[in-house]
Amino acid sequence: MSLELHPDRLFPADPTVRDIARELYDSVSTLPIISPHGHVPPQWIADDVAFEDPTSLLITPDHYITRLLHASGVDLADLGVRTHLDADAARRAFRLLCEHWPVFRGTPMRYWFESQLVEVFGAYLEPSATSADALYDRISSWIEAPTSRPRALMQQFGIEFLATTDDPCDDLAHHARIAGDESFTPRVVPTFRPDVYLEPARSTWVPAVDRLAEVSGIDTGDYAGWVAAMEDRRAYFREHGAVSTDHSHRDLGTQRLPAAEAETLYAEARAGRISVTDGDRLRRHMVDEMARMATEDGLTMTLHPAVHRNHHGPTLERFGADVGADIPIGVEVTQALAPLLGRYGTHPNLTLVVFTIDETVYSRELAPLAGFYPALRIGVPWWFIDAPDAIRRFRAAVSETAGFTRTSGFIDDTRAFLSIPARHDMSRRLDCAHLAELVAQHRLGLDEAAETARYLVVDQPRQVFGI
Amino acid sequence: MSLELHPDRLFPADPTVRDIARELYDSVSTLPIISPHGHVPPQWIADDVAFEDPTSLLITPDHYITRLLHASGVDLADLGVRTHLDADAARRAFRLLCEHWPVFRGTPMRYWFESQLVEVFGAYLEPSATSADALYDRISSWIEAPTSRPRALMQQFGIEFLATTDDPCDDLAHHARIAGDESFTPRVVPTFRPDVYLEPARSTWVPAVDRLAEVSGIDTGDYAGWVAAMEDRRAYFREHGAVSTDHSHRDLGTQRLPAAEAETLYAEARAGRISVTDGDRLRRHMVDEMARMATEDGLTMTLHPAVHRNHHGPTLERFGADVGADIPIGVEVTQALAPLLGRYGTHPNLTLVVFTIDETVYSRELAPLAGFYPALRIGVPWWFIDAPDAIRRFRAAVSETAGFTRTSGFIDDTRAFLSIPARHDMSRRLDCAHLAELVAQHRLGLDEAAETARYLVVDQPRQVFGI
Amino acid sequence: MSLELHPDRLFPADPTVRDIARELYDSVSTLPIISPHGHVPPQWIADDVAFEDPTSLLITPDHYITRLLHASGVDLADLGVRTHLDADAARRAFRLLCEHWPVFRGTPMRYWFESQLVEVFGAYLEPSATSADALYDRISSWIEAPTSRPRALMQQFGIEFLATTDDPCDDLAHHARIAGDESFTPRVVPTFRPDVYLEPARSTWVPAVDRLAEVSGIDTGDYAGWVAAMEDRRAYFREHGAVSTDHSHRDLGTQRLPAAEAETLYAEARAGRISVTDGDRLRRHMVDEMARMATEDGLTMTLHPAVHRNHHGPTLERFGADVGADIPIGVEVTQALAPLLGRYGTHPNLTLVVFTIDETVYSRELAPLAGFYPALRIGVPWWFIDAPDAIRRFRAAVSETAGFTRTSGFIDDTRAFLSIPARHDMSRRLDCAHLAELVAQHRLGLDEAAETARYLVVDQPRQVFGI
Repeated sequence: MSLELHPDRLFPADPTVRDIARELYDSVSTLPIISPHGHVPPQWIADDVAFEDPTSLLITPDHYITRLLHASGVDLADLGVRTHLDADAARRAFRLLCEHWPVFRGTPMRYWFESQLVEVFGAYLEPSATSADALYDRISSWIEAPTSRPRALMQQFGIEFLATTDDPCDDLAHHARIAGDESFTPRVVPTFRPDVYLEPARSTWVPAVDRLAEVSGIDTGDYAGWVAAMEDRRAYFREHGAVSTDHSHRDLGTQRLPAAEAETLYAEARAGRISVTDGDRLRRHMVDEMARMATEDGLTMTLHPAVHRNHHGPTLERFGADVGADIPIGVEVTQALAPLLGRYGTHPNLTLVVFTIDETVYSRELAPLAGFYPALRIGVPWWFIDAPDAIRRFRAAVSETAGFTRTSGFIDDTRAFLSIPARHDMSRRLDCAHLAELVAQHRLGLDEAAETARYLVVDQPRQVFGI
Repeated sequence: MSLELHPDRLFPADPTVRDIARELYDSVSTLPIISPHGHVPPQWIADDVAFEDPTSLLITPDHYITRLLHASGVDLADLGVRTHLDADAARRAFRLLCEHWPVFRGTPMRYWFESQLVEVFGAYLEPSATSADALYDRISSWIEAPTSRPRALMQQFGIEFLATTDDPCDDLAHHARIAGDESFTPRVVPTFRPDVYLEPARSTWVPAVDRLAEVSGIDTGDYAGWVAAMEDRRAYFREHGAVSTDHSHRDLGTQRLPAAEAETLYAEARAGRISVTDGDRLRRHMVDEMARMATEDGLTMTLHPAVHRNHHGPTLERFGADVGADIPIGVEVTQALAPLLGRYGTHPNLTLVVFTIDETVYSRELAPLAGFYPALRIGVPWWFIDAPDAIRRFRAAVSETAGFTRTSGFIDDTRAFLSIPARHDMSRRLDCAHLAELVAQHRLGLDEAAETARYLVVDQPRQVFGI
Repeated sequence: MSLELHPDRLFPADPTVRDIARELYDSVSTLPIISPHGHVPPQWIADDVAFEDPTSLLITPDHYITRLLHASGVDLADLGVRTHLDADAARRAFRLLCEHWPVFRGTPMRYWFESQLVEVFGAYLEPSATSADALYDRISSWIEAPTSRPRALMQQFGIEFLATTDDPCDDLAHHARIAGDESFTPRVVPTFRPDVYLEPARSTWVPAVDRLAEVSGIDTGDYAGWVAAMEDRRAYFREHGAVSTDHSHRDLGTQRLPAAEAETLYAEARAGRISVTDGDRLRRHMVDEMARMATEDGLTMTLHPAVHRNHHGPTLERFGADVGADIPIGVEVTQALAPLLGRYGTHPNLTLVVFTIDETVYSRELAPLAGFYPALRIGVPWWFIDAPDAIRRFRAAVSETAGFTRTSGFIDDTRAFLSIPARHDMSRRLDCAHLAELVAQHRLGLDEAAETARYLVVDQPRQVFGI
């Protein structure tokens, strides 16, 4: 079956609305891409690596794709997850995807993938058992072209700004190398992601905090040391261009502890004997500490809470983390963030962005909060809900309380490098479709809608992430 | 920019549906306004006060508007919140609103405000930095006209019935004065709002219950006295025309206590030493007591639960309550109301209306409950979700289980007096749009839809509030 | 008023989308009906019973209908609930329904009922006070026809497969009789519904487990005996054609107990003195045990959790259970199912279907889970949310994460035998409408949509229930 991308894809079917959506979209479709949160490995860009093969490029690292194949009975190992695939096996893995193509109907994974086929690889064939080999060969030969390297692609894609996600102890050598090359104009910056240093009850915490001491040269033997070392590393990240810190914990709690109790719990954690409950309490205190630091150094603080990581034990054991077995849980925002917002919610230097997969908090909690607190922004739909219908639900749930200015701007949050243009394009199409609905219902003027569309694409992310 | 209100505003774009919506709307657009729950100060009507200036009329008291300006960096004091503004400052406050007009895009605040500009003030200018002064002057001169007083406006707006919200100890003198004037035909009645008398663990409770004793002449030294005094004041309110009592507590709990325990907890509260937990338990008992009274005196009982009041401490300290910092939390209905509904859910004299900002309970709990219990009605969207997309979600969530007869009729819940017509008009447009969708999908006949539209506007509120 | 069923009913109004929906629907509208979960009494089919009168056929047993009449002030006794109605009273009951017909506007009950009037009874009259007697007479004379018996109707309706719901101790004699008649080709099979045997803290448990011992011939004096007896009855059900077991408990917990603790709690339960909390813990262990059995015998396991049964005490006392007073509560899936899925989530022999009335878990928990675990399927909307708008929300909430292949296929879950065709037809119309939207937005090809429509109607239920 031949594959085409319809110019009106994702627009509403009603001719009036569709025409307005198209007009709005035309005015923003070629604006540069700003990607303030994602997971592209910086080394790819630093070394301008050559991609290896279609499978390791498009399938193996993308848990959006591997998870639904897994649900359909495919072994993750056969897709290369934590498994070396030789040339034949890589081709077989790609064929597995193509054979299972119908399971992706209705998903954004299909949308992004087909967009890449046409717009990146120039491959006008729908994936299927019969087209699998032809597609594999087409992509393989694309990979060999000198223009198929990350740096050329960033420029081809119009990516003006790209943030990666990095460990606080990372030396950011890749970023230094990228920044040092003046011939390469897009900005690539690190993001400070300190989760492991804020979970004192986990077995990974003590070694992490040891490493933190080593890297920062600051003794992390007591809580004050931890604070100083974190501040040191944040400064280091800022010097290397970071604009934000990112945090993912089970809940959004931000209750501070009395100073003495924080010290005591820290000492217990250092000794490796803090309880899970106390670990959570200390972590909530530490999250608040990070907000305090943000008011001082101005790094935007993003929260991605409420995920049950590694839901399937046997998969964790066999394949490790981040392979598609993380599952959302419910989240509470109003009460959890009350302590933090009570302290810093009107601080002129703080920007706090809360993302959620629990859609119930959009109209009930996040929009009311962001419609009052200048420091708070509503994160756009993330991960599972970065998808057409969910994005529409998001705008319909938050705009009526918080308008358009209290959201975050689009973030793609992806390690699927080649899908970045398709993801931003999808977001633009859907925001334009939403605005077009408002225009068609006489709730917004066309000029205002055009201004808003542009604002959402370029001004808002720049403002929210201080770019 | 010139400002116009499109006759088809808020109707769906599809021509078939739009035409049906328009036809339905035309049949109800001029029906009288019944406003069974709101916050207009009765003194305004009793004294037929002259409004002072555009800012104190339209901005300062309206926390829907001040909150989003606050989120956009405006100091509440600059909008006159708990602050005296001289003439220049009032004009500057109005300009702040106009300059920030784009932040209201997509919100009902914009819709209501623009409706007022055109339909009340005859001001055909979109708010902006350049139009601010002209608008201010236009509204100022409108204010001076003798027809711009509350009584003339109520008649101009077609407000047939208006309920205010009042403290149980209020002497209702304003209401008596209004009722005593036979030349003024609209009905203005009080609503019994006893929240503070039902929160025994709050510092405000003891003085409130002292005042209750004084006003009622009944000793509130024990629980029986509290009951008798409350019954006395309810009777007083009924004599002054009240049709309902209104209640807003953190949860919907209605678990009765054994009589002896209620007495003991009451005594502890009287002594000022009840715990927060026991205060909540006694409050839940008292809420049930109010339902029992309702079965006897026939006052409709409305519940507006699950709001975290005064979320931002510094704002409370500086500006007091009700300035836009109240934030919703999740609510549970099925189990919380089980005790009350077990006792009174089929009582022919009880009408209980439950409002919610937590939309998750519409299809899961409220519609199933109201589809079984004759005493229960589903409150229409309230506050943050009194907005176009949310209202559509509401009808789509409850009608399939509970039809149209189990809802409450529209309430505007506003102190923004001049916005009342626009709010009722918005509700009519959206209900007609929903009905039109059903007609266009052949799920309802056009005649039935017209009958239902009329029922929702006039018959349902009259029935639910016993008007 | 005359009654007609519009051929485009339930399709979107937009002409483009409607035409696609119609084309898709035409391709599946006459496919056979597969009903893998419902509550038709098997004796009706075994004995090919004659129906008695319109009221006992259409109203009395259908709590979807009686509950909304009850909310509208009708006494359940007047509808025949747990009450004998003579001929006049039956006619009066039917008239009550017709007089209250407007309360069903916007509900699927109206849709199903009117579909039956036209398509089953050939009665082209809208229910009302004036049409009540004519309708009653029309249906009464229809009942007398020899073709109005269950077996003829199953064939007329195209019901190829029908599962009933049965007690594990049932001898399945009706099913044996049906299966033994080779002239009757539709398959009618039992479903193993062991709820009462898994609730050790209920007063009904001890006698149930005694009966289980008697019927299975296995001593249920200890936990091992309970396990063996349950396995024995499952085998008996499988021999009689069962394809699934069905479970409805308050939560979805699946935490196993240490073997010794399970034994101890079982002994306490046997002695009639287990606490409610321990009863719940043992029940969660037993639910996991059922999953383990499912991995061995291959019966599909369906869960219908989170209902507060018999919400209104006085109604339970007067009329018993299952009369419309069951009310949903919130449910948690991710953490509750983690233990079970950790053990069996990738077991090739397990199919676990989770239904919910709590729509919040669709996008947040169920779709992410079913998009990873091969054993898990998302149940289609059930009970209160088996309704047009809710079904659309369901597809929009789950497809983007889990596509179309991870859902369950439609189940009608009804004892309203004559409504089965209308229910399946409604589902087909709505799935086609959803697919048509995707086609019109260029998110899916028309051929793919047609293939998916057919898959959802016949292939998916066969696959999920191993038919």
